[in-house]
This record gives sequence, C-alpha cells and structure tokens, in this order.
Amino acid sequence: MPNAHHTLTRRVAFSETDQAGVMHFSNFLRWMEDAEHAFFRSLGLSIETERDGVRISWPRVSVGCDFSGPARFQDELEVRLRVARVGRKSVSFEGEFLLAGRPVALARSTSVCCAIHPGRDGVFEPIDIPDDIRARLAQGSCE
Amino acid sequence: MPNAHHTLTRRVAFSETDQAGVMHFSNFLRWMEDAEHAFFRSLGLSIETERDGVRISWPRVSVGCDFSGPARFQDELEVRLRVARVGRKSVSFEGEFLLAGRPVALARSTSVCCAIHPGRDGVFEPIDIPDDIRARLAQGSCE
Amino acid sequence: MPNAHHTLTRRVAFSETDQAGVMHFSNFLRWMEDAEHAFFRSLGLSIETERDGVRISWPRVSVGCDFSGPARFQDELEVRLRVARVGRKSVSFEGEFLLAGRPVALARSTSVCCAIHPGRDGVFEPIDIPDDIRARLAQGSCE
Amino acid sequence: MPNAHHTLTRRVAFSETDQAGVMHFSNFLRWMEDAEHAFFRSLGLSIETERDGVRISWPRVSVGCDFSGPARFQDELEVRLRVARVGRKSVSFEGEFLLAGRPVALARSTSVCCAIHPGRDGVFEPIDIPDDIRARLAQGSCE
Repeated sequence: MPNAHHTLTRRVAFSETDQAGVMHFSNFLRWMEDAEHAFFRSLGLSIETERDGVRISWPRVSVGCDFSGPARFQDELEVRLRVARVGRKSVSFEGEFLLAGRPVALARSTSVCCAIHPGRDGVFEPIDIPDDIRARLAQGSCE
Repeated sequence: MPNAHHTLTRRVAFSETDQAGVMHFSNFLRWMEDAEHAFFRSLGLSIETERDGVRISWPRVSVGCDFSGPARFQDELEVRLRVARVGRKSVSFEGEFLLAGRPVALARSTSVCCAIHPGRDGVFEPIDIPDDIRARLAQGSCE
Repeated sequence: MPNAHHTLTRRVAFSETDQAGVMHFSNFLRWMEDAEHAFFRSLGLSIETERDGVRISWPRVSVGCDFSGPARFQDELEVRLRVARVGRKSVSFEGEFLLAGRPVALARSTSVCCAIHPGRDGVFEPIDIPDDIRARLAQGSCE
Repeated sequence: MPNAHHTLTRRVAFSETDQAGVMHFSNFLRWMEDAEHAFFRSLGLSIETERDGVRISWPRVSVGCDFSGPARFQDELEVRLRVARVGRKSVSFEGEFLLAGRPVALARSTSVCCAIHPGRDGVFEPIDIPDDIRARLAQGSCE
C-alpha cells in the first residue's frame, strides 16, 4: 500500500491560545480540517471542486477529539492524517497530533460528499463520491 | 429533580460562516463551551476560579459533535445543555442545537477539574472536584 | 435626529481570550462587525440581501482599532456603534467599547456596497447604495 | 542596512473564509500578528519572554488594515513585514499582503512593551524596551 499518512507541521499561533496558556481545543479541529485539505491537494484534488457545473463540497456529519496533553504558544505540532474509511458517499479521517514525537490529541472526522446546486448556497445534497475522487482517496486509505 | 437543562440562545455571526454558506463546524464546539460556562455562571460558579490560592481550570479531555443540518448567517440557535455525568474528577455535558425547534447538532464534552499552580501556566494537575462545586453541578445532572 | 447609536452588549467568551489573560485584539474587530450587522437588523435590513436577483454584500476596505484597556473573560462589554459617514457607495462606522462605563477600545470601519453576480462568488462590483438602504442608514447617521 | 523585511507565506484555510467566499477580514490582522511573532523568532527573540522573573508581553494599542482585493480559499499569500518605528516603549509594524505579487491588503500595528507581574495576569505595566531587544528590533527597522 502506498503512503497512508499525510503529515502537516505547524506552529501554535498566539491567537490560538487561551487564558489557560494553551492552544484552545477548538483549534485542534481546525488543524484537522486543514490537514484533510492539504491531503486533498497532495492527491491533486481540492475539497471545493465542480463536476458538470455543480459545486461539490464535503460538510462534516461528525467530528471528535481526545486530548492527552496541552500544546503551547510556538510549539511545533505534527498532524499525522490517515484515511480511516471511504464509504459510498462519505470519507472518514483520523489525525494524530504529536508534539516532539509525543501524542497530545487524536481527532476523527466524517464528511459527506455533497452537491451544491447553482443559486442554492448552503443547501447540500449527498451524492456518491465521483469515481476519480474515490480512486485517489483510496490510495491514502488504510482499509 | 430541578431544571436539568440550561439553554443558550444566540445568532450566527458573519465571521462564524464559511464559504459553503453555513456556520463553520468548529463554532458549534465553541458555542458548546460557552453554554457550559453560562451554566456554571447560572449556578453561581465560574469555570475559572481559585481554591486556597490555587487556580482551578477545566481542560477538555474529549469533545465530539454530530451534525444533522446546517445553520446559516443570522439564524438564531438554541443550545440545550445538560450534565451527562459528574465523576470524581470530571464532568460530561451534552448539548443539543436547535434551529426553529429542529435539531441541527448534538455535541458532547468531558472536562477534568485541574489545579494550575502559581507560576505554572499551562500545567494542569487533575484533582477531585471540590465538594461545593460538585454539589451545584449535581443539581443540573440527569444521573 | 433619531437615536444615532446602536448598542450591542456581550460577554467575553473563553475562546476569545489569549494566553496574556485578555480578549484577543482581533475579536474587538469581530464584535464591531457584529454590532454593524445588529444595527442593520434594527433598521429592518440585512448585510446580505438581494436586489433584482443580484446579491449585495459589504466588504470592508478599511478597519482600525485603538485599545486603551484590556477586556477579560466573562467581562460584559457594551459596543456603542454610530454611523460616521454615508457616502455614495460606502458607509463608515465608529464603535466605542465600554467596560463598566469606561472606554477600552475605539474601532472604525468602512465598507463598500457591492454586487455579487450569480455564479461569481467572491467577485465584488462596487455599486451605489440602493436608495431605500441609504435612507435607513442615514437615520442612524451623525452627519 | 540589513534586511528590513521579514516574509511570511501562508495558504488561506477553509475556516478563515466567510460566506462571501473570501478570507474574513479579521484574519488578515491575525496573520499580521503571526508575521510579527515570526519576525521576533527570526531575531532569536520571543514575543513572550522574561526579564528578572517578570513576564514581558506586547499588547497592541493600535491596529489598522486597508483592503484592496480579496483573498480566497487556498490562495497563497505573502506578508511582507517591516518595522515602521521603534519607540522607547513601543514598536510599530507595517505588513503588506501580496497575492501572486499583487497587493491585497496593508496592515499596521503598534504594540507596547509591558511587564506582567507574577500573579497579575492581564495587568500590563508599560516599560522601556529592554536594550538587547531594542538592538535586535532596530536591525529590522527602516528608520
């Protein structure tokens, strides 16, 4: 199997900290999304694309994150993303956050492939993942 | 049992939307936290407090959210928060997000009661929930 | 002149603080925007609207903020918004932030009325402010 | 004069966009702060440091930004930061945002060097910029 991981490395910004002196928990989930989008780009895809004049987007139906340690201002974290599952209409990811090689968080997400029809911003119709996208995602899958 | 729910009502801000035309998923988890803090205030407590010169904070060890529908700019949402469980050192919440009475998201969180010792910002030591705090939280519990 | 002020009152959220123990500066500018949008609503308008099938939006061309004191977690702030100027295509606001009656920040913004043509998300064409919108904004103006 | 610019290059994240299909204006100001902190690191400094057991921080007293064009999801922007002025207690920066070499925003900030005394989180006492910090900042200055 080809490389099942995609890794994002990033430094904690000041605006991402909170008054407890650590990265606010919600930012782990934003980084997780950024890692997914970087993964799509690494496959030659974009999370926002078109097929036959219809916009395709991937709204989340589920997210979760367990935290085992804090991340602080200017810490450099590694997010190791892997495809956990490619379904007919959905894809699930897991992302492990490492600080100096030590896990600090484990995030999960499931997104559904949706069509957004012209003039209908914010209305999502679940569709089968287009074959070319599925083929590329499967390369990154651990199934 | 007294009122087991605490309700937060709020309107989706423009800065909380994303280019898919809906509230970015991460903001549901921020609202969940805000609902918890409003609940603490409603009990005469604060999420950030002191006992014997030691700061007490409640870092999260786990969060999750399932999404069943979008929320759009200026939508007014209701977050119905309930205490799911009060443990020895931790408390778990569930928050249901309603838009015009219809559920759009269900969030979960577990936070651990921690001491932050003077001069040790960002270092968290798990402690038993102080009795007075536990007593008030239990009033809001569904156990 | 009718009431030239619109006031927004809000409590600082935990996720809005940073590790210096105060509200992150960028959130003052987000609150400013929220106050403007609340002002629009108070006039029976929305910042996102349509005229003849064309979406109208108000991207900012300029923002600024001077800070004279910190705001902390759970502080309740008042944002006193006033219309500083209504131009042919633009509107400028000033917002004073008060904590217990004492000023902590003064924000400024200028937004341009723009058309977003169908299928051209993110492409803004400056237009004259529609007469009905101008008339209502002028009611809130100090000119 | 040595290199008066420090450049940060970054891609617009999905969570940084808004429903107008562009990066929310407030994120330009967050990126500006990130560029300043990267500049401090490039000088061997940190924006959060200690001198004689006293924490030093740099709260902003003023920020501003003019926008001349939008930035969209996945656009790669360059922030060209320069020191505009080093005062006795304050430092001012200018940051030009470029998209494919074309300016899209110009940001300004002034921060004051402050002591945060032990146990007094969020209380800032303006102080003279320590000599060693001033010397390094001056290297990046255009004065």
